[in-house]
Amino acid sequence: MRIVLIGAGNLATQLGMELKEKRHQVMQVYSRTAKNAQELASKLNCAFTDDLFSVAQNADLYIIAVSDNAIEAVLSGVNIGEGLVVHTAGAIGIDIFTPYCKNFGVLYPLQTFSKQKKADFSTIPFCIEANSGENLQTIKDLAESLSKKVFNVSSEQRLLIHLAAVFACNFVNHFYVIAEQLLRDGGLDFDLVKPLILETASKVVEHPPKEVQTGPAKRNDSIVMEKHLKLLENHSEWSELYKLISSNIYHNK
Amino acid sequence: MRIVLIGAGNLATQLGMELKEKRHQVMQVYSRTAKNAQELASKLNCAFTDDLFSVAQNADLYIIAVSDNAIEAVLSGVNIGEGLVVHTAGAIGIDIFTPYCKNFGVLYPLQTFSKQKKADFSTIPFCIEANSGENLQTIKDLAESLSKKVFNVSSEQRLLIHLAAVFACNFVNHFYVIAEQLLRDGGLDFDLVKPLILETASKVVEHPPKEVQTGPAKRNDSIVMEKHLKLLENHSEWSELYKLISSNIYHNK
Repeated sequence: MRIVLIGAGNLATQLGMELKEKRHQVMQVYSRTAKNAQELASKLNCAFTDDLFSVAQNADLYIIAVSDNAIEAVLSGVNIGEGLVVHTAGAIGIDIFTPYCKNFGVLYPLQTFSKQKKADFSTIPFCIEANSGENLQTIKDLAESLSKKVFNVSSEQRLLIHLAAVFACNFVNHFYVIAEQLLRDGGLDFDLVKPLILETASKVVEHPPKEVQTGPAKRNDSIVMEKHLKLLENHSEWSELYKLISSNIYHNK
Repeated sequence: MRIVLIGAGNLATQLGMELKEKRHQVMQVYSRTAKNAQELASKLNCAFTDDLFSVAQNADLYIIAVSDNAIEAVLSGVNIGEGLVVHTAGAIGIDIFTPYCKNFGVLYPLQTFSKQKKADFSTIPFCIEANSGENLQTIKDLAESLSKKVFNVSSEQRLLIHLAAVFACNFVNHFYVIAEQLLRDGGLDFDLVKPLILETASKVVEHPPKEVQTGPAKRNDSIVMEKHLKLLENHSEWSELYKLISSNIYHNK
């Protein structure tokens, strides 16, 4: 299968390298920033372009891995005829393709990607969707060559999964940011809480998160919570978060 | 060193078993609930009691591993003379001992414990404190027999660490709870986001959390955020959290 990769960000980079490793033929990389396109193309040993009109028209599959709000611009600018086009976004419905393509679908890898860190695709759940049984099968075959976990998921379900992922990843990471800043303000090292962070994540792989909740909010230990809030006096936003979440934890027992 | 363990909860259980494994002599377990005391004592092959007056008076070290608000009751009820007493709490100052003991300190393992899951003590940071150099050395020797990471930390710093831990563990776990409930409400499995949860935690072991933040809030992608908020329409508390944290992430870039 001859693949064109549209995008050169974190996901496009990791996905491109994994496709190459699994012996798929990435024939071209597009990015609106020539430097980024070139950088990824050199890793994949393929052609590149920063011009949508120059995207190859004879590929079997076009993978759009750009930020959500750039997908429509790509679709309206590129000329891909009968080729199968997929996007990789959690929060974009499959109907975004309707005005532009005949064969389309979604290949959404449920993971957070960085350019530096190699992703282990074999553990990543892929949520797939397509406009026909034949296209779904093509996408499924590709996804299964990368991961053992491939799921047929509707656009509505995918949005819900994406929302859950925002809580479990982005919002969680924000609390790591707060913890890091609190410790730094006290002249302490973020390293201190890293074993706790890893254990907290590992625990819910084996146990329902509600069952393993601990801490002052769950016990409704108001003396400890008052002490904490005093430390947060100069951080009104964190203090507001602290109260809201503690109350949530207590009432959600 | 002859040790009395006061408490039979998650931490007391894990700590007791680790002390035994490291060839320390736990001579007695106290819990106000006889059944719990007996259960742990049978694991440690030692005596037990549910009566504070019957706590052995000839131990070298008393480790109080009960919930924060029960520590004072233990101290006022137990008769331990010159023995060294430590508590294991993050949010309780060392001065709680002053009216009751001559030799005292703190041995705070910065980790979340469950009864079922064996803790890997070698990676757990221990925050220690004592009322004298000699007692500090005793506590340090014990802590270093369990872990490579032992830190002298004041009561003020320890409270700050505990607060950071509440964000990085309890509040994070609450977001796992929300993600699980969102998925369940949509007929989807929590397993879907487990690889994401593990990757999000692993990432910040190597990179500062602020640098690896991703998602719609960071990009200020209001279209996606509106879609998410629509899904949260019937969950006013989660919706409030969503807005507050998204705004926090965006302004904290």
